[in-house]
Amino acid sequence: MKALRLALMGFGNVGQAFGKMLLEKQEEIQDRYDTEVKITAIATATKGNLYNPEGIDIAKAIEDAEKNGSFNGPDLTELGGIELLEEAEYDCLMELSPLDIFTGQPATDHLMIAISRGKHAITANKGPVAWYFRDLKYLAEEKNVGFYYETVVMDGTPVFNLVEHTLKMAKVTEIRGILNSTTNFILEEMEKGCDMDDIMARGRQMGFIEADPAMDIEGYDAAGKVTALLNVLMDAGIRPDQVKRKGIEDITMDDIRAAASRGNVIKLLCKGSLDEEGNVIAEVGPQEIPRTDMLASVNSTTSIVSITTDLMKTVSIVEHEPEIEQTAYGVFGDMLRVLER
Amino acid sequence: MKALRLALMGFGNVGQAFGKMLLEKQEEIQDRYDTEVKITAIATATKGNLYNPEGIDIAKAIEDAEKNGSFNGPDLTELGGIELLEEAEYDCLMELSPLDIFTGQPATDHLMIAISRGKHAITANKGPVAWYFRDLKYLAEEKNVGFYYETVVMDGTPVFNLVEHTLKMAKVTEIRGILNSTTNFILEEMEKGCDMDDIMARGRQMGFIEADPAMDIEGYDAAGKVTALLNVLMDAGIRPDQVKRKGIEDITMDDIRAAASRGNVIKLLCKGSLDEEGNVIAEVGPQEIPRTDMLASVNSTTSIVSITTDLMKTVSIVEHEPEIEQTAYGVFGDMLRVLER
Repeated sequence: MKALRLALMGFGNVGQAFGKMLLEKQEEIQDRYDTEVKITAIATATKGNLYNPEGIDIAKAIEDAEKNGSFNGPDLTELGGIELLEEAEYDCLMELSPLDIFTGQPATDHLMIAISRGKHAITANKGPVAWYFRDLKYLAEEKNVGFYYETVVMDGTPVFNLVEHTLKMAKVTEIRGILNSTTNFILEEMEKGCDMDDIMARGRQMGFIEADPAMDIEGYDAAGKVTALLNVLMDAGIRPDQVKRKGIEDITMDDIRAAASRGNVIKLLCKGSLDEEGNVIAEVGPQEIPRTDMLASVNSTTSIVSITTDLMKTVSIVEHEPEIEQTAYGVFGDMLRVLER
Repeated sequence: MKALRLALMGFGNVGQAFGKMLLEKQEEIQDRYDTEVKITAIATATKGNLYNPEGIDIAKAIEDAEKNGSFNGPDLTELGGIELLEEAEYDCLMELSPLDIFTGQPATDHLMIAISRGKHAITANKGPVAWYFRDLKYLAEEKNVGFYYETVVMDGTPVFNLVEHTLKMAKVTEIRGILNSTTNFILEEMEKGCDMDDIMARGRQMGFIEADPAMDIEGYDAAGKVTALLNVLMDAGIRPDQVKRKGIEDITMDDIRAAASRGNVIKLLCKGSLDEEGNVIAEVGPQEIPRTDMLASVNSTTSIVSITTDLMKTVSIVEHEPEIEQTAYGVFGDMLRVLER
């Protein structure tokens, strides 16, 4: 039996959920791909780092992370994250480190190091795809390795794979989507007439409003996602700071009520389209949507992307109220693509 | 350069739209697959049959069909449809003959003949996938040829390919959908308070209410589609007559108003799920849906399938108001799969 050796940068909720999925499906993977998937390295900011070229005990790593918040045992290593990336034995990097939407770093550097070493690379981090997509893509092509990023937009829900594998030869001409849960939740609750302080408190309690919600509310997260979509699906070659971005910070209850009086709701819409010269125009901003429109029914943590192509008009794909397992499935599915190479 | 030779059974709207798409994309196909796609045989019920092992003039066939409703010229043949299937030179059958939802014939026989000869087979006809899926699948496996049917549900919108190519290793546990445009249009118009005679007249004018609308209104079309979905995606091994089927023929304006008073709309829902023993249960019937639910926003000729799996919860895919080109893209995409083999 062959082996695929993974190095994980980051081992938070997604990494742990991925580890569980891998353990659960290990046998089926072996049957299907005649390959055993091992994790040989895990680097984290707060739990310590693990390294074992023969394969880390995944169940133990998950248990230690959950119970103690830190690793222990014989696989603990003094090697730092970058050292592991540069020196450890692995076939594929799985980049799960925290996002910096303003720079795409250090995730991009991690991917560059791995790909430069001829390793496949998977990222769940939208920063690199938003900021450095072409660089990463060209480097991966040059090194003849896989570079996968399905999780970057809508978790494991196929968006990039949808176009690449099921809409072959169709040329994308427009993309519209609702891609930020936090703003979607806030707008929906405002619609119900809830008080803003109360909305923020409940959103924090439910775990999808961050301590500092500006990233979401001012549209930076949505801008990162639409940039990733447009870079991959429309070869836009743009950065998040080139998106015409407006958040929902100025939306008032009066705006919501005025929209309602017109039979509309307000949603934070992501959009990419072509101008007359064929350049891709990227926008994020609040927009009034008729209440009967499908987009108006996208509530809470549900998200949607509508993709218009020359051959298939508009096809939409919807992710319904995902949990952490759906993010884990995104990188799991990318790993299956590596196995198929 | 290699060649792929197609035999078309049927050359109505879909066949002609496919022909145009093929002509438009011929060059790109040659660049991408190093293969020239030819049509060597076309059999029709009313236009005559064409055969040329070197390739029929596709543009002329389309023009003759559009202008004269019949073929002419040197490629006209006395060979009948079955004779062409049995004797003509081709690599792949494209089955576009009219549907008989009660038997799946003669389309299934056409496919059987071609596959038995070791030819790839593509069908846009849901009958064979609803009635004889396993037989066709096993025969194609035995003969080591491709058997493709993406168009059977929601035209070229990926449904089967979505699961096979983008939700790998995810096990489908439930399917829900709105898949019949005619009933969807009628219910929507009733909702607006329109008179039934008027609805039927306009539906006929718009081309999506048949002269005899019973197939749609009594749920046979939807039952055929849900059977196809369940046979492929849940290995159900069922026939359309095993679907628990109820149409919208008994829905009255009072029902619609009563639903509205509860904040609901009535939709003809297709559903497949597992019972406690793991058997697939297939149902088609009118159901009340909350007006705020995404399914309630699926109007007119738009359709939706929601697929629930063990690993990715629920993902929905939506086709927005398709035209004939979207059906043509379904078989075009299947042809690209053949080219990739």
